[in-house]
Amino acid sequence: MRFFSDNAAAAHPKVLEAIAAANPLDTAYDGDALSQRLDGAFSDLFETEVRALWVTTGTAANCLALAALCPPYGAIICHRDAHIEVDEAGAPGFFTAGAKLILLEGKGAKVSPDAVTAACDRIRKDVHQVQPAAISITNATEYGLVYRAAEVAALGEIARERGLAFHMDGARFANALATTGESPADVTWRAGVDALSFGFVKNGGLNAEALILFRTELFDEVAVRRKRAGHLLSKGRYLAAQILALLEGDLWLDNARAANAAAQTLAQSAPSRLVYPVEANEIFLQASADEAERLRGQGFDFYDWGPGEIRLVTSWDQQGQEIERLAGAITALDAA
Amino acid sequence: MRFFSDNAAAAHPKVLEAIAAANPLDTAYDGDALSQRLDGAFSDLFETEVRALWVTTGTAANCLALAALCPPYGAIICHRDAHIEVDEAGAPGFFTAGAKLILLEGKGAKVSPDAVTAACDRIRKDVHQVQPAAISITNATEYGLVYRAAEVAALGEIARERGLAFHMDGARFANALATTGESPADVTWRAGVDALSFGFVKNGGLNAEALILFRTELFDEVAVRRKRAGHLLSKGRYLAAQILALLEGDLWLDNARAANAAAQTLAQSAPSRLVYPVEANEIFLQASADEAERLRGQGFDFYDWGPGEIRLVTSWDQQGQEIERLAGAITALDAA
Amino acid sequence: MRFFSDNAAAAHPKVLEAIAAANPLDTAYDGDALSQRLDGAFSDLFETEVRALWVTTGTAANCLALAALCPPYGAIICHRDAHIEVDEAGAPGFFTAGAKLILLEGKGAKVSPDAVTAACDRIRKDVHQVQPAAISITNATEYGLVYRAAEVAALGEIARERGLAFHMDGARFANALATTGESPADVTWRAGVDALSFGFVKNGGLNAEALILFRTELFDEVAVRRKRAGHLLSKGRYLAAQILALLEGDLWLDNARAANAAAQTLAQSAPSRLVYPVEANEIFLQASADEAERLRGQGFDFYDWGPGEIRLVTSWDQQGQEIERLAGAITALDAA
Amino acid sequence: MRFFSDNAAAAHPKVLEAIAAANPLDTAYDGDALSQRLDGAFSDLFETEVRALWVTTGTAANCLALAALCPPYGAIICHRDAHIEVDEAGAPGFFTAGAKLILLEGKGAKVSPDAVTAACDRIRKDVHQVQPAAISITNATEYGLVYRAAEVAALGEIARERGLAFHMDGARFANALATTGESPADVTWRAGVDALSFGFVKNGGLNAEALILFRTELFDEVAVRRKRAGHLLSKGRYLAAQILALLEGDLWLDNARAANAAAQTLAQSAPSRLVYPVEANEIFLQASADEAERLRGQGFDFYDWGPGEIRLVTSWDQQGQEIERLAGAITALDAA
Repeated sequence: MRFFSDNAAAAHPKVLEAIAAANPLDTAYDGDALSQRLDGAFSDLFETEVRALWVTTGTAANCLALAALCPPYGAIICHRDAHIEVDEAGAPGFFTAGAKLILLEGKGAKVSPDAVTAACDRIRKDVHQVQPAAISITNATEYGLVYRAAEVAALGEIARERGLAFHMDGARFANALATTGESPADVTWRAGVDALSFGFVKNGGLNAEALILFRTELFDEVAVRRKRAGHLLSKGRYLAAQILALLEGDLWLDNARAANAAAQTLAQSAPSRLVYPVEANEIFLQASADEAERLRGQGFDFYDWGPGEIRLVTSWDQQGQEIERLAGAITALDAA
Repeated sequence: MRFFSDNAAAAHPKVLEAIAAANPLDTAYDGDALSQRLDGAFSDLFETEVRALWVTTGTAANCLALAALCPPYGAIICHRDAHIEVDEAGAPGFFTAGAKLILLEGKGAKVSPDAVTAACDRIRKDVHQVQPAAISITNATEYGLVYRAAEVAALGEIARERGLAFHMDGARFANALATTGESPADVTWRAGVDALSFGFVKNGGLNAEALILFRTELFDEVAVRRKRAGHLLSKGRYLAAQILALLEGDLWLDNARAANAAAQTLAQSAPSRLVYPVEANEIFLQASADEAERLRGQGFDFYDWGPGEIRLVTSWDQQGQEIERLAGAITALDAA
Repeated sequence: MRFFSDNAAAAHPKVLEAIAAANPLDTAYDGDALSQRLDGAFSDLFETEVRALWVTTGTAANCLALAALCPPYGAIICHRDAHIEVDEAGAPGFFTAGAKLILLEGKGAKVSPDAVTAACDRIRKDVHQVQPAAISITNATEYGLVYRAAEVAALGEIARERGLAFHMDGARFANALATTGESPADVTWRAGVDALSFGFVKNGGLNAEALILFRTELFDEVAVRRKRAGHLLSKGRYLAAQILALLEGDLWLDNARAANAAAQTLAQSAPSRLVYPVEANEIFLQASADEAERLRGQGFDFYDWGPGEIRLVTSWDQQGQEIERLAGAITALDAA
Repeated sequence: MRFFSDNAAAAHPKVLEAIAAANPLDTAYDGDALSQRLDGAFSDLFETEVRALWVTTGTAANCLALAALCPPYGAIICHRDAHIEVDEAGAPGFFTAGAKLILLEGKGAKVSPDAVTAACDRIRKDVHQVQPAAISITNATEYGLVYRAAEVAALGEIARERGLAFHMDGARFANALATTGESPADVTWRAGVDALSFGFVKNGGLNAEALILFRTELFDEVAVRRKRAGHLLSKGRYLAAQILALLEGDLWLDNARAANAAAQTLAQSAPSRLVYPVEANEIFLQASADEAERLRGQGFDFYDWGPGEIRLVTSWDQQGQEIERLAGAITALDAA
């Protein structure tokens, strides 16, 4: 059973239906009726005028945004464990033509205002050192922690003061909001965020993510960069259809709530083993190599995460029996 | 009725079925069983060992290949009307980190051995001038002309002599082979081609293209570049499923034959108006602005292509009545 | 005797003196007193406030300017024979991170307003085609023709209307002005030029060129790009010293006048052989391979320039006897 | 008095003489007799066949080498305080088209074999993480520490085992060798170094550095990259002349010995304040803000280096009285 990541979960049936329903449409790129509805749908969701572009990966969403927010000779401040640093094969360097990542420490991959300030202050203001141009945070973080709106706003305030752009990698944005119940607007543009990678693939989508631009004037540049990076699909309607299906009736939130609930069940099976509080759909547990082996022996698939730790990730389609079995197996470790 | 491009045609029902069938699979990236079958399937088709990667656009396939075949300080020789020059927003420059395109003239976007030789000979062999590193041709060409295996081999011979890599943009590779009946192997690696962008999206696919590497040692680099460009989808199985569905029972060839047949019907409706021989699924016709207007008035949608010319493109799903109506409307232009 | 280029001529004695005089200074980069004088010296020369940066090559000056004027996804319109296209090893692609050059035809490497307009009009305004962002012209051109202020202004007007930046490669700017007698201001910013590569190396300098920014707000970005490209020398004072020595008492104009006068002497030796009017210090002559051989046999060194043509370039330090001998040798060809 | 860096010291009189002597030469780029002598001169010095290229800055030497040694999708392992990370404005990212720097800790900016091994081991061998391609060390380090040949060889061994290229930034290579007395060969290619940035500017040069390629097959690529980066000066003879003058009679070693001796004098004036052992020409001292102020009040110019530390750098032209005065002033601090 898959607990190694939510990135391979099934697509939601409504997503598959929406794809099939989009088949008769025949306008290319993003000229079709579905793609044209995205700006409106996201503007409604975010309670302000936004521009939205579909892409097929979070890496594309992140790096197209960063390329528009940071010049080749600038730097992006992010956490040492950020996906853009650790798991995108250097894509930020590729899309920005060589911008630098400045890596912060911080528990649970969370970026603190103090860490940002200290990183900025360490840099001499001259042409010899790369000057920061943007901040990027991940919400929920790579360790499943969630930023509240006020926390984002504190970073947004620093960004504003220092003239830095502000990007949020929301590969698990839905899981974060499902936990806090805060509004999409409060956690993003009202808190100073300029661009959001809004993840759908891990949350019931098939292969569509959305890049949301709160600074709408960036749209033209990002649209060109999307094409130039080979990310303007000719049959974009199939991507728009997925996103609209997930937005419809807040299916995206329902899916995230289901994944989060499953995570809570697992968390409660081993409270003393938790490495981080479980705030979204990722659970990091202390577990010896032997214990990990025992779980694997029962058919559970997951990653080791450093020595003595394992990572479990739940997804929208994992509920009931499967979760109960894993929870039971974890509980049983203590008995052993 | 859509005749502006085959890039917005419907996905074939079998493709949709294959996507639905892939849903239960849950391995990420290209580790799933379907993705793992691609190398074998294409090796069978090409009668030699190849490596195959799915991507979502022809631009991505073309430019990932070119980045592996041409250093940043090299040049790619192609036709002035090549898609990589005209319609990819400068993607080759982005993926290669600044390589140059050397543009050739040639009727119908076809690259001739003489033109390649002359272009190479014009370049001084010193550090001041950008040295050619690769040739890229499009088959079928942007004007619907087809290279026979012998023609490709003549270019392949020059490539070999000059130490140039050789790439084929096969966005309409299926249409080319449907016309010539030649084998995939003869038109590619046996003729010296190193990498092929094998198009499926215009030919019944939904959003999957294949990049075929005949020089299999390039795979590792291309795989990294794919990830780095944000083109490694986490649920790659849905792309592999599409490609395998189209390979199954030569559906790709059937689709291309249908599109080509439709094109022949249109061509025969106006033989005296043809700007180029119709060898695939594109028809370029002489037509005045008035005549174009008249066709549009009857519901046909297509591009003007320079003054006094129009372009019609047929697709796998256009047959019977729709084509007959357009053929009739074209014939009627002469009567007017 | 060197007539292959002015790029290897001696440095003027005053330049060597200035270098020696700069030796005791000991402030690094461009913080020294000489470097700090450049802005003022060029602001005086151009009758407006400019920012000036020393670099060591024309390629660096050109491409730093272009990188600031054209985004990676934009295009630079220039002549097919422009130095940036033909003789800089693709440096524009490197510095801009992949921008494209759009190449114009035109007699003597001269860019005409009509050619620029036609090139712009050919481009569809969509994300598929690379949009022009800048024009670059060379003055004097690669064939020794000179733009008058009015000609530059006509191009500047198009640039303004189309929202294009405007760069002038002035590797032989001195030679151009020495011919026309026009003011530096009239041929540049008053005609709409945003940035000028002001050449000194071919005109008595040792290894210093100047990049002049008429849009002074570009300075900070260009200064960072200069550092990032490895072009911020730690002992910049030796470059500033050269430039100031050449500006002093209009030595740069005197040098250019000397080179131009030498060119006129040669031109008059063979008026019927001239391929282009001689307006600066380059002379293109019709000469058979035999005739070229004969000249070489007498110790004259120069380039063949296509079949049946040769190029001669004069420099500030070539006067009197040497020029007379070559003029005589050319005249004698007719007698042969 | 300048103690802030050796990068602004005077050029040695013999260097100025050599430049003047090169004036009559008139061959462009690196075709002149002096430039052509570099390969031989450095091959003699390094007791093996090498290729050598002049450039004007250490940043250019470093980054041209790194671009040839590391692909855009690779990483360069270096110290957190390495010049390429801290003081080159992101030039490695620019020259390599986006390669990443992996930063190591280590006292005095020294890279240890264990740190390299640990950094490599932390990286998963998949396409998601950037794989290391090269190691770069600085010798003498940014804190004036020196690698012995055996230390370099230990790193070279790891590089060999892991398939990593090995670059040495030798901005103060002369100072390092002047201290150890080891041979240039032992500290470089015999220890596994592939390319060396051999600094001359800080050591009596005017504006010439050398890039030494021990893997001679890299020459062609590096030569093209040099041109493409605007670093192929047309009058290269003036650079070659400087380098040859400094090689002549081991003037480069004499200069370095003089600077090192001055550093020792200063070090002995305050042994208890030394932050690092003084092994080359840089002295890091503990000094309060008050003490620093007191030194500045006596006319000494230097950098603060973090709280409570200052950096002094000596150069070839600083001897005798000037050094004695500063040494005295430092000693006097303790008395105060």
